[in-house]
Amino acid sequence: MRLAKMAGTRCRVDDMNAILEELRPVFYPRSIAVVGASSDEDKSGTQFLRALVKAGYTGALYPVNRSGERSCGLPAFTSLRFIPEEVDYVVVAIPRSTVLPLLDDCAAKGVKAVQLFTAGFRETSTDAGVQLEREMVTRARRGGFRIIGPNCIGIYNPSMRIPYGPLSQIGEPGSVGFISQSGGHGGRFVELGIERRINFSKLVSFGNGADLDCVDFLEYFAADPETTLIGAYLESVERGTRFMDLIRQTSKRKPIIVWKGGRSPAGSETAISHTGALSSSYSVWKGAMAQAGAIAVESLDELADTVISLEAIGPATGGRAAIVCGLGGGGGGESVLAADVFGSRGLKILPFTEKTRLGIGALLPGAGTILRNPLDLGGILPKPEVLEKVMSLVLDDENVDFLVVQEHLGKLMKTLLGDELSALNQTLVASQRARNKPLLVVAPAWARTEPALEIEDQLRRKGVPVYRSFESAAGSINRVAGYWRRLRA
Amino acid sequence: MRLAKMAGTRCRVDDMNAILEELRPVFYPRSIAVVGASSDEDKSGTQFLRALVKAGYTGALYPVNRSGERSCGLPAFTSLRFIPEEVDYVVVAIPRSTVLPLLDDCAAKGVKAVQLFTAGFRETSTDAGVQLEREMVTRARRGGFRIIGPNCIGIYNPSMRIPYGPLSQIGEPGSVGFISQSGGHGGRFVELGIERRINFSKLVSFGNGADLDCVDFLEYFAADPETTLIGAYLESVERGTRFMDLIRQTSKRKPIIVWKGGRSPAGSETAISHTGALSSSYSVWKGAMAQAGAIAVESLDELADTVISLEAIGPATGGRAAIVCGLGGGGGGESVLAADVFGSRGLKILPFTEKTRLGIGALLPGAGTILRNPLDLGGILPKPEVLEKVMSLVLDDENVDFLVVQEHLGKLMKTLLGDELSALNQTLVASQRARNKPLLVVAPAWARTEPALEIEDQLRRKGVPVYRSFESAAGSINRVAGYWRRLRA
Repeated sequence: MRLAKMAGTRCRVDDMNAILEELRPVFYPRSIAVVGASSDEDKSGTQFLRALVKAGYTGALYPVNRSGERSCGLPAFTSLRFIPEEVDYVVVAIPRSTVLPLLDDCAAKGVKAVQLFTAGFRETSTDAGVQLEREMVTRARRGGFRIIGPNCIGIYNPSMRIPYGPLSQIGEPGSVGFISQSGGHGGRFVELGIERRINFSKLVSFGNGADLDCVDFLEYFAADPETTLIGAYLESVERGTRFMDLIRQTSKRKPIIVWKGGRSPAGSETAISHTGALSSSYSVWKGAMAQAGAIAVESLDELADTVISLEAIGPATGGRAAIVCGLGGGGGGESVLAADVFGSRGLKILPFTEKTRLGIGALLPGAGTILRNPLDLGGILPKPEVLEKVMSLVLDDENVDFLVVQEHLGKLMKTLLGDELSALNQTLVASQRARNKPLLVVAPAWARTEPALEIEDQLRRKGVPVYRSFESAAGSINRVAGYWRRLRA
Repeated sequence: MRLAKMAGTRCRVDDMNAILEELRPVFYPRSIAVVGASSDEDKSGTQFLRALVKAGYTGALYPVNRSGERSCGLPAFTSLRFIPEEVDYVVVAIPRSTVLPLLDDCAAKGVKAVQLFTAGFRETSTDAGVQLEREMVTRARRGGFRIIGPNCIGIYNPSMRIPYGPLSQIGEPGSVGFISQSGGHGGRFVELGIERRINFSKLVSFGNGADLDCVDFLEYFAADPETTLIGAYLESVERGTRFMDLIRQTSKRKPIIVWKGGRSPAGSETAISHTGALSSSYSVWKGAMAQAGAIAVESLDELADTVISLEAIGPATGGRAAIVCGLGGGGGGESVLAADVFGSRGLKILPFTEKTRLGIGALLPGAGTILRNPLDLGGILPKPEVLEKVMSLVLDDENVDFLVVQEHLGKLMKTLLGDELSALNQTLVASQRARNKPLLVVAPAWARTEPALEIEDQLRRKGVPVYRSFESAAGSINRVAGYWRRLRA
């Protein structure tokens, strides 16, 4: 496998064990050396090492710096070559002028993977930068190791307690694999994932992709049994045909969501200088993506919302929504908004059947209750047993495939204690589980307090997607429905 | 004027003093009676009164309830008729079955304006509801007073310390007038306004608009010297020709932003039951709005962003942006995103001139700095005097009409003290003021802490618009630019 790679040919997607084996030291290193970690806390290398220590990485850690001074409480080495044990993975955070000799050390030491935080290569669009990057790859081939980067943050693997660069916080291990050409977007997704319980199998920021690039990582995630859903932020793809083949083959088994940076002419110019690669016309790209079965998004929030919707909306879920607004306050204007937003995004909000209307009317008498879909509870907060019956009626309606409930957590918590609100949500979850129709919650971003965020998190832990707005819910549900539709076709 | 109204004719827009006089008791009542305010704290009437007391309304307040029990520390009356002083404005929060006799009391007492929180009229689509609403208007005409509502929250006037219904918090008085058919959206805009320093002259939620409707309030705001910018959330307009004439005439002097609810067929159905009025096809509406000079938006956030952009982007501002990312952290991916988002929304990001590039290159050497627009500072945090020079160069660039700076406040505050960050922002503001080109800040919604929000607020108080995302900045700037373009044409 390694030889085949070095000879310039590429593995096939059915050769899955080979790619898993090839990149095992990248994602599951038994030991990591951080070159550039010293006693200076402000140095990037020190920050990478500190995060590894803080996150509780269980493998061996070796700081390397010129003076051999201790870093983050660990004894350091003046050269990689002096480390007595085997080193799988090397983090490089030293000036670019000193990188080439280090790569020779890596070869001598027999390391398997080298990640370069160091920048100043092809992305500068200078001859010197391009030349240096090329020379690095040559030495890696010769030395028998792979390069991640340069100009990147590298790997995040929660199951190995490997944090994302200097960001020590680690989320729960999960099944989302993410590939990012941008270190910043990758980091933001790690943070957003922790907040919204999007749990990663692995995530990688690969920067310039001098050696390992998006095609390699896509091959890996396609093969990886820990990954069931793949996301990517890409500014450019060099091996386009192979990339499209991979998307086509993989998207049948694992949904793939792609956020393309450098879509507009101005953005495209910027992408060239960001990671040094040429991006193609966005409309061509987008059409090709859809044909190949990938889901295109245009921002990190859209990406996150789509991941969350994929977890709730299955291939058998239809596009007919029931919407309930005004639980505990407001509701009229929000109902109109919900109908506008869902209706304009290809989803259906059909009237409830007469049976449902009569049933709800009997449970919630009074002029304020308008028996339509969206159902506006108009500030009424029914008792849990009544709410359970209302939700059951709505979920049992033959015109309803999934239920969206708007919860103004801030307002609700003015009326209810936290425990009461938890119980109310438990009622919703129970009604839904008994019927096997997805329940989704829209909790507006405004008026968020710590206790409200805790309630939100409780919902997430019960597997209920929580969105910030009707727009984000409807947009992502529509994208997911389109994905399943194309897959069936 | 009043007679003319009662005879069914309508005032002309140049008859400004008349409409201001007519609605003076609505917006500047010298005394308010709250019918339905009692010792029961959960009653809506009590909540309205409590908010008036808490907000510090300076006029006379009279609770009215059947048993004459004190409310919010004030002596109450068993009937409106027993109040010894004059009553300008009456808030009604009693069951709908008791409303008609109350209106007779209002007539007997000589009140000028009656606002009904009470619902259950035309919006129920029942004969009884429609009939009752019609009868109310008849009695108001006969009694010589105006009705706001029913099914609404009524007036918010910061200069009079009149809060928005039960919401006691009051923002600073300003010059934005807002008309809302939805009480919920109106309330949300009040809250958002306080958060984002959108300061209102007045705001009104008019619900079913049985008597005073959006045309009346638009006439008022067109005439009101305190109002320089008008916003509206509307689900329907009954006097369409008059409404369009008013928009056409007024938008030349005061920008008008309209958010239309009930755009999709489903939303339109819902709007009927929300405030009882029929809404027209959205595409027709949108085209007519643009022709008449109004700015159409589709959510409250778009509305708020557009108000904010109108305050920064003037008729003479061109559409060429300079964007600075990566101040204090990240930057590459964000720069690509910024270029994508601005580029795809009709704005221009031209390359800097050679003079600018050479100047910045001399100030910020190093490979990480990419001398493009967007300018990616790539995590560099220049000293204030250097930053001031960089910003001056950018602002002086002949290809730049306005400057957008992305600030990750959370990240910046890990590096800087709050005071240092304030000083840095002060530097930005000073550079901009000297050049008279707008400065706008994009501060992502994530990683917001109390100190970061305080910094955001400092920027707002200095007149710098702060947006949550590049999308919201670019979208609203583009809408505002379109408004000025149409105005010139």
